[in-house]
Amino acid sequence: MELKNLLRYTLSLFGTVIVLLFLLSNLPSPLSNQAELLACATKAPWCASKNRFQSNRPDYLRKPTNPTHSHSADVPRHPLDPLTVSELNRVQKIVQSLDLFKNSVYALHSVVLKEPKKEAVIAWGKGDPLLPRVASVIARAGGKTHALTVELVSGVVTGQEMGLVYGYPTMTVEDMNSVIWAPLASAEFNRTVLERGVDLVDLACLPISTGWFGKSEENRRLIKVQCYSMKDTANFYMRPIEGLTVLVDLDTKEIVQIVDKGKHIPIPNAANTDYRFSAQNSYQRLVNPISIEQPKGPSFTVEDDHLVKWANWEFHLKPDPRAGVIVSRAMVVDPTTGVMRQVMYKGFTSELFVPYMDPTDAWYFKTYMDAGEYGFGLQAMPLDPLNDCPRNAYYMDGVFAAADGTPYVRSNMLCVFESYAGEIGWRHSESPITGLGIREVRPKVTLVVRMAASVANYDYIVDWEFQTDGLIRIKVGLSGILMVKGTPYTNMSQINPEENLYGTLLSENVIGVIHDHFITFYLDMDVDGSDNSFVNVSIQREYTSPGESPRLSYLKTVREVAKTEKDAQIKLQLYNPSEYHVINPNKKTRVGNPVGYKLVPGGTAANLLDLNDLPQKRGAFTNNQIWVTPYNETEQWAGGSFVYQSHGEDTLLVWSNRDRAIENRDIVVWYTLGFHHVPCQEDFPIMPTVTSSFDLKPVNFFESNPILKTPPTVENDLPICKADAST
Amino acid sequence: MELKNLLRYTLSLFGTVIVLLFLLSNLPSPLSNQAELLACATKAPWCASKNRFQSNRPDYLRKPTNPTHSHSADVPRHPLDPLTVSELNRVQKIVQSLDLFKNSVYALHSVVLKEPKKEAVIAWGKGDPLLPRVASVIARAGGKTHALTVELVSGVVTGQEMGLVYGYPTMTVEDMNSVIWAPLASAEFNRTVLERGVDLVDLACLPISTGWFGKSEENRRLIKVQCYSMKDTANFYMRPIEGLTVLVDLDTKEIVQIVDKGKHIPIPNAANTDYRFSAQNSYQRLVNPISIEQPKGPSFTVEDDHLVKWANWEFHLKPDPRAGVIVSRAMVVDPTTGVMRQVMYKGFTSELFVPYMDPTDAWYFKTYMDAGEYGFGLQAMPLDPLNDCPRNAYYMDGVFAAADGTPYVRSNMLCVFESYAGEIGWRHSESPITGLGIREVRPKVTLVVRMAASVANYDYIVDWEFQTDGLIRIKVGLSGILMVKGTPYTNMSQINPEENLYGTLLSENVIGVIHDHFITFYLDMDVDGSDNSFVNVSIQREYTSPGESPRLSYLKTVREVAKTEKDAQIKLQLYNPSEYHVINPNKKTRVGNPVGYKLVPGGTAANLLDLNDLPQKRGAFTNNQIWVTPYNETEQWAGGSFVYQSHGEDTLLVWSNRDRAIENRDIVVWYTLGFHHVPCQEDFPIMPTVTSSFDLKPVNFFESNPILKTPPTVENDLPICKADAST
Repeated sequence: MELKNLLRYTLSLFGTVIVLLFLLSNLPSPLSNQAELLACATKAPWCASKNRFQSNRPDYLRKPTNPTHSHSADVPRHPLDPLTVSELNRVQKIVQSLDLFKNSVYALHSVVLKEPKKEAVIAWGKGDPLLPRVASVIARAGGKTHALTVELVSGVVTGQEMGLVYGYPTMTVEDMNSVIWAPLASAEFNRTVLERGVDLVDLACLPISTGWFGKSEENRRLIKVQCYSMKDTANFYMRPIEGLTVLVDLDTKEIVQIVDKGKHIPIPNAANTDYRFSAQNSYQRLVNPISIEQPKGPSFTVEDDHLVKWANWEFHLKPDPRAGVIVSRAMVVDPTTGVMRQVMYKGFTSELFVPYMDPTDAWYFKTYMDAGEYGFGLQAMPLDPLNDCPRNAYYMDGVFAAADGTPYVRSNMLCVFESYAGEIGWRHSESPITGLGIREVRPKVTLVVRMAASVANYDYIVDWEFQTDGLIRIKVGLSGILMVKGTPYTNMSQINPEENLYGTLLSENVIGVIHDHFITFYLDMDVDGSDNSFVNVSIQREYTSPGESPRLSYLKTVREVAKTEKDAQIKLQLYNPSEYHVINPNKKTRVGNPVGYKLVPGGTAANLLDLNDLPQKRGAFTNNQIWVTPYNETEQWAGGSFVYQSHGEDTLLVWSNRDRAIENRDIVVWYTLGFHHVPCQEDFPIMPTVTSSFDLKPVNFFESNPILKTPPTVENDLPICKADAST
Repeated sequence: MELKNLLRYTLSLFGTVIVLLFLLSNLPSPLSNQAELLACATKAPWCASKNRFQSNRPDYLRKPTNPTHSHSADVPRHPLDPLTVSELNRVQKIVQSLDLFKNSVYALHSVVLKEPKKEAVIAWGKGDPLLPRVASVIARAGGKTHALTVELVSGVVTGQEMGLVYGYPTMTVEDMNSVIWAPLASAEFNRTVLERGVDLVDLACLPISTGWFGKSEENRRLIKVQCYSMKDTANFYMRPIEGLTVLVDLDTKEIVQIVDKGKHIPIPNAANTDYRFSAQNSYQRLVNPISIEQPKGPSFTVEDDHLVKWANWEFHLKPDPRAGVIVSRAMVVDPTTGVMRQVMYKGFTSELFVPYMDPTDAWYFKTYMDAGEYGFGLQAMPLDPLNDCPRNAYYMDGVFAAADGTPYVRSNMLCVFESYAGEIGWRHSESPITGLGIREVRPKVTLVVRMAASVANYDYIVDWEFQTDGLIRIKVGLSGILMVKGTPYTNMSQINPEENLYGTLLSENVIGVIHDHFITFYLDMDVDGSDNSFVNVSIQREYTSPGESPRLSYLKTVREVAKTEKDAQIKLQLYNPSEYHVINPNKKTRVGNPVGYKLVPGGTAANLLDLNDLPQKRGAFTNNQIWVTPYNETEQWAGGSFVYQSHGEDTLLVWSNRDRAIENRDIVVWYTLGFHHVPCQEDFPIMPTVTSSFDLKPVNFFESNPILKTPPTVENDLPICKADAST
């Protein structure tokens, strides 16, 4: 490059940075808490407990259900409580004193509670002394990954450098935050952007995990950065600088490679892409105000910050930087005995796998694992009261550690609320022909735990919904913004039918690329105790013998207890159906059925990629919809502990193929919920929520319908309401 | 039989009838509108518009949303409006004057509007003269079935005797009402009952359709009656007199056969079976009161009694004695143009098929078709305000004809309400790394149309749920009471594992028999007009060429337009997925995609019975999950027009196998939603609701997200509520 050019680009770069900084502090965003988010976006180390809703909040945020309080005084009260601000401070102090960290640049990729042994947690009761508090720390230092265990009281640190493991820990927010600016250090990049007609001040870039596709992606942490124009829209995702991919070293921020295969592709227009209410030139109020109201208040309490008690349920709830939400020690009251019975020791989103279906240069690597690569909890932004969760919701904050170990607060990360949609818990009317004149109906009220993770463009809404009849519904909603591809085409009429677009033309020059979403749940079921069995209750066609019956065929169930893991690698088949029971073989109902819970899949999609495809080896935990493994505290993350650039050597598939015994043991059930997403124009510029779910449902767990004795609603139960005086 | 015996049994019979009549008028049922139902149960002809909530209603029923009004003054205002009381009276008068009916015993099995030609309805606009009103009458007279058309103004009757059709019309309520007492005319029956330890005064009997299993069930209308003991419980279903089956001629009430194969089987105990709130010795209030509140009232209106207008939707709604609910002319406003666009001409529950999985004598024939045999709408009992539907619901009455043609009112048969469960319509938060500080969320509010049919023991809740984003969710909930089988066993430990119970031991001496539910929906989609095509958008694995990409495989879509019916006989396969589009090939979006709606299956179950099994030939409409036929006004009932004792010669399978052209035509889509039900103890004595659904979802129907411009909820939108002063 000539000196003149270098000078020109350096100046342009400096100008850009200044303009960007200006922009960042002046962008209008009337309905959002910009100040709070910006503080964390632009400052390192990440802000601590200051990071909360303070003044300047718009009016509709002024009445949070739980009073704003500083987390600096939090103390743990339950063995599973997450690390508190003061505990994180203590970990930071201990870690910083280690030689390893004193002598090199380091980053803490994960600082979370190392949960005590399961037996100890189960044995613990309120009032007992708290179990010893230990932190689990994943750090990068000296170019290596270290997994450390830090005893908080003694300060003893044990642990190891992760030697032969392929794959890196979850990116820190600082990794993502810094790497997106790295390309601006390249004059070539800047020139390319300018040549594509985008001012550098309009640039918005995203950090895109590279996956692993062979030798060239080994022995260094890499990321690909792709950029967009945010000129005239907050929805820059709809304005890709298509084909421009910058490969960056995540540790050094060195630019490894710049590829531009999209020079012929225009940047799509900004028109009609902005989805913010403030950016609409008109609005459309389709329905009158509507609200879930509870004149006597909600029926749940949150004890000691984390123990949720509602109706017949009790469970421990905590935010987690990787999983998002962790539900532990879920127990339900037996209506016959009044005893609290164990259902699930621990449940959470273990991993997500989101392969895009475009094999071309700028797209083939988009095979995201949102939990292990980005941190599903790290991406769970503050919920929007009254819109994300109804009135009377309780909000729970996340307390996480920044890369340098400083604690910070993700406020309103989870919400808990009671829901009533007008649904029916159970009912029966008698036909007039019996003359009984019966009409007995009970409304259905549920308790929902919600988080919403925004992994860049996409928004995942994860609900754990508890029903009084003992059912737990786990629901995933997909919303947010599509990852789109630029194209020269503006109309389908220009396109040869033989040409593969890899998606749908959504708007002029915009293709929504086909992709799948798989969300894999870890479900450590403990049905009335830890030793359980998994039973495949197969529903099979049976033929009658000649002359036995006017019927030729009927269905019967065949119970097969899974002896080893391979017996429980299950692909769902509509024409070979089963019920999937987790039973306690040591406990029977009054009439002798084993007590159990069943996993009930709902609508789902299977992974169809070739099993030898490199992304699929990494995402092999989606090869089946159901797996069952013996409990092993090291096997929690379905894609492996170190998923970033992993090779697929530490997945649920690998563990399960060991084919260990699982009968009458402490077992973990894994379920993968899938979605095929072929985009359509309705998804532009922001997607209406698509939802699917599965259930954990009692099956001979109770002696009989556990909500038989609940009363119907009568008029006097309901509130008297009037419109807000101020409207 | 000796004379003495005959005398004894005759006396016993008379005594029984008297005690039954006494019982019927004195049964306690504090939470139900007994008086109203009894009036219809015991009086023939069925009561007319008097059959409404009047005085003596419990307090919680005193405030219906729609004012009680007499339907005697109803007039039709829309071409699809159901026959009014005065029109039904007119039909009765015309029909009674026919020679055929003057000269023989007759019964009207169906009197409904014969809808005008589709084109005429579409062309009709408010203010135009109403199209000629015509009734369609199915009658039995002189031992034959007659299908008549009655022109209301002229009184002209056309029609025919149904000669070679196998199968009979839907039973009348009078059929069911009378046949259950028929066995009492048999001394043998009475003796058997007494020998089983059941007093005749405690007897409750059910009319069970026989299905068709060969010659012996031809040329006469037959039914099987099975009985229960209602001693000490309103839930007589849990106390079967197992194995006792009485075959009765429906026309003559003659007892054809009595079989008792259950002499060794005790009647299960009454303990813990009654589900009525009034019968509980204690109650359990699990949650505080909760309510959906709308301070400014609901956002929907019902014009002219049947035209529902809500948000961006408009549709015609009517009760139907066979289908239950009929939704017609569903149209949605295009937010870009403001134009009302056609989505679905007509949708309803066409048939249900409920085969039980027990081939033994007292069970093999239980293969119900609830719509065609019993009348899904005839069995839809009045909804329970505040429990079946939330506050602010609008209730719609059904006006039907009794067997003699006299109109009667089924009050509160449907409800319409707005629902808000705390769900999210769309959302996006920006990660701090972009610095945009965006959090935009819109709550999801829907409109639900509901009915609940109690087909003897079972309750089906059918919801049509409309979303502002254009989606229609059709949801079926199953609740009510199991059909159970008596058994000598009281504990699983007594049972040889090789023995087939045909179900689950639910309680001492009670087996819940395995069964399936299939609900087949008729969906006459008219996407922006009547001429549509059905496109199978197959999602297929595609391999890259060597060297083309680091990826080995990806998914692509392959669009196959169904040319003829057989192209659209579809079995769902998780590993061979498709999207199922109904497109208008004559209309494209701005960027050239055909406008369409897609059918999106959710969780479902397939029929696994052998295709040659006689019940399955009758229920062959469940052989596939999806079918598409060309519009034909005679093809509305998937099991055939005359389903009772049908042979399966007039089913959707038969029509579809004609393989008619369906491309760019007026087409009808059929979808079957299925459930396998293996009972569990939680289903005893009444079942918590199990729900599944499928969606009709816009796919490139709108140019973009149609709810982009909706505002978020702010605090001032919400009501100020207090507990009811009287509580």
